Amino acid sequence: MAKDKEASKRYPLAAYNGGERTVVDVGGVAVGDGSFTVIAGPCAAEAGESLYKTAAAVRDVGASIFRAGTYKQRTSPYSFSGLGKDGLELLMKIKEMYGIPVVTELTSESRLKYYSGVDLIQIGARNMQNFDLLRAVGRQKKPVLLKRGFGCTVDELLLAAEYILSGGNDAVILCERGIRTFVGSSGATLDIAAVPYLKRITHLPVIVDPSHAAGSADLVAPLALAAAAAGADGIIIECHYNPSKAILDARQTITPDELREIVSKCAQIRKIIS
Amino acid sequence: MAKDKEASKRYPLAAYNGGERTVVDVGGVAVGDGSFTVIAGPCAAEAGESLYKTAAAVRDVGASIFRAGTYKQRTSPYSFSGLGKDGLELLMKIKEMYGIPVVTELTSESRLKYYSGVDLIQIGARNMQNFDLLRAVGRQKKPVLLKRGFGCTVDELLLAAEYILSGGNDAVILCERGIRTFVGSSGATLDIAAVPYLKRITHLPVIVDPSHAAGSADLVAPLALAAAAAGADGIIIECHYNPSKAILDARQTITPDELREIVSKCAQIRKIIS
Amino acid sequence: MAKDKEASKRYPLAAYNGGERTVVDVGGVAVGDGSFTVIAGPCAAEAGESLYKTAAAVRDVGASIFRAGTYKQRTSPYSFSGLGKDGLELLMKIKEMYGIPVVTELTSESRLKYYSGVDLIQIGARNMQNFDLLRAVGRQKKPVLLKRGFGCTVDELLLAAEYILSGGNDAVILCERGIRTFVGSSGATLDIAAVPYLKRITHLPVIVDPSHAAGSADLVAPLALAAAAAGADGIIIECHYNPSKAILDARQTITPDELREIVSKCAQIRKIIS
Amino acid sequence: MAKDKEASKRYPLAAYNGGERTVVDVGGVAVGDGSFTVIAGPCAAEAGESLYKTAAAVRDVGASIFRAGTYKQRTSPYSFSGLGKDGLELLMKIKEMYGIPVVTELTSESRLKYYSGVDLIQIGARNMQNFDLLRAVGRQKKPVLLKRGFGCTVDELLLAAEYILSGGNDAVILCERGIRTFVGSSGATLDIAAVPYLKRITHLPVIVDPSHAAGSADLVAPLALAAAAAGADGIIIECHYNPSKAILDARQTITPDELREIVSKCAQIRKIIS
Repeated sequence: MAKDKEASKRYPLAAYNGGERTVVDVGGVAVGDGSFTVIAGPCAAEAGESLYKTAAAVRDVGASIFRAGTYKQRTSPYSFSGLGKDGLELLMKIKEMYGIPVVTELTSESRLKYYSGVDLIQIGARNMQNFDLLRAVGRQKKPVLLKRGFGCTVDELLLAAEYILSGGNDAVILCERGIRTFVGSSGATLDIAAVPYLKRITHLPVIVDPSHAAGSADLVAPLALAAAAAGADGIIIECHYNPSKAILDARQTITPDELREIVSKCAQIRKIIS
Repeated sequence: MAKDKEASKRYPLAAYNGGERTVVDVGGVAVGDGSFTVIAGPCAAEAGESLYKTAAAVRDVGASIFRAGTYKQRTSPYSFSGLGKDGLELLMKIKEMYGIPVVTELTSESRLKYYSGVDLIQIGARNMQNFDLLRAVGRQKKPVLLKRGFGCTVDELLLAAEYILSGGNDAVILCERGIRTFVGSSGATLDIAAVPYLKRITHLPVIVDPSHAAGSADLVAPLALAAAAAGADGIIIECHYNPSKAILDARQTITPDELREIVSKCAQIRKIIS
Repeated sequence: MAKDKEASKRYPLAAYNGGERTVVDVGGVAVGDGSFTVIAGPCAAEAGESLYKTAAAVRDVGASIFRAGTYKQRTSPYSFSGLGKDGLELLMKIKEMYGIPVVTELTSESRLKYYSGVDLIQIGARNMQNFDLLRAVGRQKKPVLLKRGFGCTVDELLLAAEYILSGGNDAVILCERGIRTFVGSSGATLDIAAVPYLKRITHLPVIVDPSHAAGSADLVAPLALAAAAAGADGIIIECHYNPSKAILDARQTITPDELREIVSKCAQIRKIIS
Repeated sequence: MAKDKEASKRYPLAAYNGGERTVVDVGGVAVGDGSFTVIAGPCAAEAGESLYKTAAAVRDVGASIFRAGTYKQRTSPYSFSGLGKDGLELLMKIKEMYGIPVVTELTSESRLKYYSGVDLIQIGARNMQNFDLLRAVGRQKKPVLLKRGFGCTVDELLLAAEYILSGGNDAVILCERGIRTFVGSSGATLDIAAVPYLKRITHLPVIVDPSHAAGSADLVAPLALAAAAAGADGIIIECHYNPSKAILDARQTITPDELREIVSKCAQIRKIIS
């Protein structure tokens, strides 16, 4: 691991050198400006009324960016892989109807052309070291949400960010989402120390995904609050107006009511630690 | 991992069944009663004025239990292994002078007889599955602080607690202190999700050791605050009146001033989440 | 992990059902036919005489397929990333001059058109879950060498293979190359048990990369021999006519003389275990 | 991890400096002399005829040391914890009847006095850092089999050995038995690279426990053969005359016929690699 004084050599563009920190503008929402940003929505965009209901609900309880998967990364080729382009169109409608910026994952450079209306492009954990994809999102100007691979170090995360930054795009948000360990009592092991470590090393905003780390709904709130207490700039969280109807990740999806409480408590914690 | 409904079968004495939670009385300090307990002191008891200075300082900034190693577990046989009995005597003086309960680690049943004045007996991470030692502290009545082994699951931690409880001692405090993973950016990977997971499964108090997980002083406070936010009942933290003079773990030892801020912020966070 | 009886449901195309095992034809070399295949060459194709010298040397000592990186996956954007197309041309010359089939890594579907002369397409560890890339190599007929991601389970490896198989390409060779653990005494932790486990579950050939797992040259031979003893169908190994001149991975690169001994001993071990 | 040149400083007694390697005499059986030693027997000593049958069987198929647990380390206090002293007496009878040296685990210094007839004292994985116990076996002269903790590094294993050696007992055999990782397809992840790494660093004999690493009987033989190929001096293996009747670890226990084949193949592999 690079020592702080070596960081500016190893990560010339991502390293924090004591000056101002990067604030990323996501469709009018500032991430990394000292406030605590909540991104929420279902794992996957769903057809019908469902997505609208969830979008309205998460906006009403205080989330400021809406998330929903469209092209999903699935471990098995036989699993549902998202609505694809139809999902992207749904997101555009939601953006228009509810005035909330949207984030969704990009899994291939070839589909980048469909993402013109998306406010924040997510690079998923499994693609954190897909260097061609990193270069592709580095050549354009939309903000990028870069998730840490579950088998990757923070050093590798910073170097992946460097791929994007060195292409000319300096709007990168880092996301810790849990790593692979021997532990089976949660979905993944949230590397909570990575948050303050990253804040020391880099000027980029750092958020946390408590949902995948939790693996079950009752652990989501404690992890979200821990993220706020550890100094994260926000969270990205799986929420559905009716979790039992969520097509994917139902087990770890929370309700809008639960989200409301998280939004409120995280904001309070953020004030205490500032 | 045992499902909640199976917990009472697997951990008949440790499982939480919806009733009252255990509050452990440590020399007059209640652990697990809804307040946030701060245990602090140096890694190892030191001769001379040093230990007194640190004890006075940590008490003054709000710690309610004093910690200091006497018989130390050292990876190498050639490392300093603590002051032993002299250290225990120093602890007794501090208890008398400053009116603060004390905790120190026990590494062998053969030395239990020297621990009559100790308020809380610590079983260290390396001894979490030293079943003879667990049985020994289960046969006596002093409260036990049981640290999770860095290679052990929470299931194993609960079963280790069960060894103590089944001997007739129900005053057990569990402690998460970080596990071994591929991550090198902190001392160990704090399994922060273990805190709410344990609170769901067991009625025993759960505290966190942010110092060993951090591995460097600047990460201690964020981890301590995260522990409070995740629902821990307290923390055990390495603090020295002058960290640069600490014989052991100097790198991750914080100052009394840093501790004061942690005590204050953790108490505030605890109120928010209650 | 899927139980054997469940394997054919979870991996309908990759599961072994007791019949014949897949033998993959790599430019005339049969992989998985009961013999032990040695793939060798430098980490990265180099300009000048170097690559020819190494190719001649590895062929002479008994390797039957030549490996060399052309488009390299590098953790940092500032590291040497291979000769690219020039490297592919060098490989074509070597194939012609020495009559040895060649394998090199493909990192983007957009470059697949340049790989017409390549005998075996490698999907690297970092791309094991790049599902678009898997689908791309599944739609063509060249054999694929699929390396296990260092943070991925064998279940995920089999499902990644299923992506390729379900596209119509049944010529897939699996490769174990070490996983991420807390161990720092070797480059990665070779999951040697994955070899017999995979042979039980799937009909696909399984090879081992001892070089990345070793991380230092003196551990390569013991790991290569262990792979043969555990039932692997072959190895892929970093070898250079003069390791100290290798541009990449010099530390773990072995000499042709060391390779000769490995080839001979692995063949003998293979006979013993058959 | 200590570099080779630093090894003699870090492990003054265990480090290999190029001279002769330690050969440990276990009741007349030389371990570490270039031959491959097979230690076998059931997980736990059982009452009745069972233990005799297994002892006769493993001796007949070529094992040279008999193993059986007497005081067992069990994760739960409610599990069977061995026959204790009765088990030790059974071992003494077997030693007399079949003329085979015996090894069994010691879990507390207080019971050392009962082990006078035991030829090799095992320190289990969970006690690898029970430093009082290490010092206790270091103060006596019987050979010690020191198993690596599943969460411990090889550096810590060598330092644990140093505890024993520095007490005056130089008859220590190291044992790799698998570590904790995210992998679930085997009982533990056998760190096969630890074998050649240890042989480089230390003069002590190194053996492997393939049974706990395998976790299922069909993976035991491949791991045993891999151990021989990687340069181990022997194996310790769970075998029962009728595995389905084994009280403990039945799932990973092999038959005498399977053991016979392992003994024969390991001996052949040992010759090849010498």
